[in-house]
Amino acid sequence: MREEIIEKLNEVKAHITKIEELNKLSALAYWDMKISMPKKALEQRSNTLGYLAGEIFKLSTGKEVKGFLDYFMPKLDQLSQTNRAMIKKLKKEYDETKKIPEKTYKEYTIAKSLSEAAWEEAKEKNDFKIFEPHLEKMINFNVEFAKYYGYEENVYDALLNRYEEGMTVKKLDEIFGELKEGILDLLKYIEASNKNINRDFLHDKFKIKKQKKLSKYLLELIKFDGEAGILGETTHPFTLDLGNKDVRITTHYHEDDLLSNIFSIIHEGGHGLYEQHISDELIGTGLEHGASMGIHESQSRFYENIIGRSEEFLKIILPYIKKEFSGFKKVKLKEFYEAVNYVKPSLIRTEADELTYSLHIIIRYEIEKKLINKEIEVKDLPRIWNEKYMEYLGVKAKSDSEGILQDMHWSAGDFGYFPSYALGNIYAGQFLNQILKDNELAITELENGDLSYIDNWLKDKIHKYGARYTPEELIKNVTGEDISTKYFLRYLDDKYKKIYTPL
Amino acid sequence: MREEIIEKLNEVKAHITKIEELNKLSALAYWDMKISMPKKALEQRSNTLGYLAGEIFKLSTGKEVKGFLDYFMPKLDQLSQTNRAMIKKLKKEYDETKKIPEKTYKEYTIAKSLSEAAWEEAKEKNDFKIFEPHLEKMINFNVEFAKYYGYEENVYDALLNRYEEGMTVKKLDEIFGELKEGILDLLKYIEASNKNINRDFLHDKFKIKKQKKLSKYLLELIKFDGEAGILGETTHPFTLDLGNKDVRITTHYHEDDLLSNIFSIIHEGGHGLYEQHISDELIGTGLEHGASMGIHESQSRFYENIIGRSEEFLKIILPYIKKEFSGFKKVKLKEFYEAVNYVKPSLIRTEADELTYSLHIIIRYEIEKKLINKEIEVKDLPRIWNEKYMEYLGVKAKSDSEGILQDMHWSAGDFGYFPSYALGNIYAGQFLNQILKDNELAITELENGDLSYIDNWLKDKIHKYGARYTPEELIKNVTGEDISTKYFLRYLDDKYKKIYTPL
Repeated sequence: MREEIIEKLNEVKAHITKIEELNKLSALAYWDMKISMPKKALEQRSNTLGYLAGEIFKLSTGKEVKGFLDYFMPKLDQLSQTNRAMIKKLKKEYDETKKIPEKTYKEYTIAKSLSEAAWEEAKEKNDFKIFEPHLEKMINFNVEFAKYYGYEENVYDALLNRYEEGMTVKKLDEIFGELKEGILDLLKYIEASNKNINRDFLHDKFKIKKQKKLSKYLLELIKFDGEAGILGETTHPFTLDLGNKDVRITTHYHEDDLLSNIFSIIHEGGHGLYEQHISDELIGTGLEHGASMGIHESQSRFYENIIGRSEEFLKIILPYIKKEFSGFKKVKLKEFYEAVNYVKPSLIRTEADELTYSLHIIIRYEIEKKLINKEIEVKDLPRIWNEKYMEYLGVKAKSDSEGILQDMHWSAGDFGYFPSYALGNIYAGQFLNQILKDNELAITELENGDLSYIDNWLKDKIHKYGARYTPEELIKNVTGEDISTKYFLRYLDDKYKKIYTPL
Repeated sequence: MREEIIEKLNEVKAHITKIEELNKLSALAYWDMKISMPKKALEQRSNTLGYLAGEIFKLSTGKEVKGFLDYFMPKLDQLSQTNRAMIKKLKKEYDETKKIPEKTYKEYTIAKSLSEAAWEEAKEKNDFKIFEPHLEKMINFNVEFAKYYGYEENVYDALLNRYEEGMTVKKLDEIFGELKEGILDLLKYIEASNKNINRDFLHDKFKIKKQKKLSKYLLELIKFDGEAGILGETTHPFTLDLGNKDVRITTHYHEDDLLSNIFSIIHEGGHGLYEQHISDELIGTGLEHGASMGIHESQSRFYENIIGRSEEFLKIILPYIKKEFSGFKKVKLKEFYEAVNYVKPSLIRTEADELTYSLHIIIRYEIEKKLINKEIEVKDLPRIWNEKYMEYLGVKAKSDSEGILQDMHWSAGDFGYFPSYALGNIYAGQFLNQILKDNELAITELENGDLSYIDNWLKDKIHKYGARYTPEELIKNVTGEDISTKYFLRYLDDKYKKIYTPL
């Protein structure tokens, strides 16, 4: 019996390894498309990506997997923690893919590409009407999918669960409610403070060549392994893993903006470190990825904001920046710190400051939850969007392009994804609290220029486990608590009250 | 019946398309490995390439292909020329792959990687003994394969046929005999001429940045489509196709050598044009590649030597070079032309001049033919190599590394491949003759800076057909003749006697 299980486990792993190989090839084909591929190859490349998606679908939903699941599901308690997680993940993917009738999925694939194209056109022409019918379809497909996936309380839970296992509307309403309240309170404080922050030195020309050198410096500083990853350049920065020895991140360069590259590098670097630190032991289990979108985002945001925008970290990098960019010559650390953490409610999510960012997400969450529950209508979206932006952030989009049309997620049918970004902030706050419990000087000592402690802590407590734990299990294992907004809010409060209290 | 055939043809094409997708992914993974991949990803990438090779093997030798062949082989005369060629190519690959017992092939794969590693070590340590037993094995495997493949007269024919369908020892002995005689005669003439050629201006520093600009200029000049291909940088230049819309070539840059980059670009560009010009109609037939290694090489060598080293072409590019590289300021066209076509027998094949290059190939052909026929022994190779180099080229290697160990081909078991290089020269001479028959000003008018005529001619007569014709059929279709050394030798004679006759 024992021997039979071992043999079967090897078969499962061999099967998962095939799926992972195809996933890697798909990631590689995507990377190449964004970085190198000549223009005219687009159609052919789409065929290749389609071919791979089809093969992955077949391998993930075939009889073989069903056989594995039939065999192992009744025996879960006989398996090691890792093997159990492997089987559960295989089942989750099998269910999610298999439950949707092939015909429906094909229709969805076609509708999705039309929707994405319509969104692009609508954004360009600043005309929500063009996108409206497609968005409607994307919502309907997702409502249908949610029913196939199954849920207990709220139809939207089924979608949330794909990106953040165990997350529900009930929990999110509570968590995001607290978060919103805390941030809005703090915003009021900041707005009342009348503190003047100098950002003049940020309006300068920063040579791309020097920015590229800076990127390398930053990646080395945060301990991104340059022999197990590479840096590329794309309009929208992203991270892609082709295994823990081949993690690829991108950044963008704007001559008139130094901060954008710096914090893209640190953000994507945070995602990248997660992938690089995943244990070799998980290779071939399907668990050699992050635990969830929210946990992944917690790592990028931890690096970007909690580390990257800390006074201690800025103290490390300021001398380097001064040396390379003459406009920074007279900038004092305090000035730099304040400029980097300048808070100003704005329209565009991806350009938001650390504090108001979560409000952008909460707006999207509130809207998509209602869309999926059919509580609001698509045609009313521009109005609803604008009302919420006015209410929470006090800003008004001049056009749909910078309002309801700004993000591509919904056009691609990705409902349930947005919350991950704010969950990342919340988790990051909890991890910070735990790090400081373990070593109260962990952040203070950063100013010595060595990120080893942070690097090892995250690696040992989070990264190396990959997807072995669900986000719920992981946060409990690491901090002893369930998800809680307390620590992130306290961090924000401490930080921004200090900055925005006039001396 | 007609309908059944059409349906079956669609099935074949769908099957070949799958194989082609995997081939493209394999090419992409290889490209990325050479250009981008981080160091530590090597093992994982080898697994990916191994996985793809296995899948391609399965698809190329499976029951499905057998079914197609059983169905179509008796019906070949009912098919169009293209479909017939498609089925024949499928059969050729099926036979070549299927005939070798799986066990033997696995042993070979292992022996091959050991052999490649041993060759590297032997070359580094300048010690043929290290490589000797591995070379022995590679030869034995190839002799065994040749028996599986089958042949009529000479065991080596079976290997030749893999790279150049229809080629035999009998033909090659005759062709290469003529070629050797012609070249040796011409070499004697040149050595007797005592002509002094100035190459001083080639010994200079040529900034890499400017060389990169020059690469782009050259690719545009020869009409390489920059939207259907890209240029990369590797130690050893190569060409890779991911379909006719995505053709990738590489070059190398040496600050002390301008010509190496120039002629690498033109050479690989010639391969690249061939791939870019293959007709869309052939996509999914397995014929969307070059007709043979020899024909492919004829295109790269036609561009590199016949076009690239012509006085007319050099007249186009000299002003550009003068503008970019100050050391060329006073160089006259005639000086440039002579320096580029300077003949000097030397030791290293890849650095040989146009005239003596084929002698390097003939030496390798003579040796590998005897090795496969077991007429000489591996242990005697260094001596045999050195004797032939002395006899044909009058040079003596100071070490095995620059002698018998210089090329990697044999270490990878690639016997029968070397002749392609010289066949390329011969075919190129025949194509030149035909172009001049069609338009006697085709080369003369190059000096106007427009390569359209040549580009269109090669595209319409050769490139667009891909592998629809065997090399034998193609040369006959294009020139009305079988392979013949006459035209290449006449071209060499005309060119080099003019250069080496003192005025």
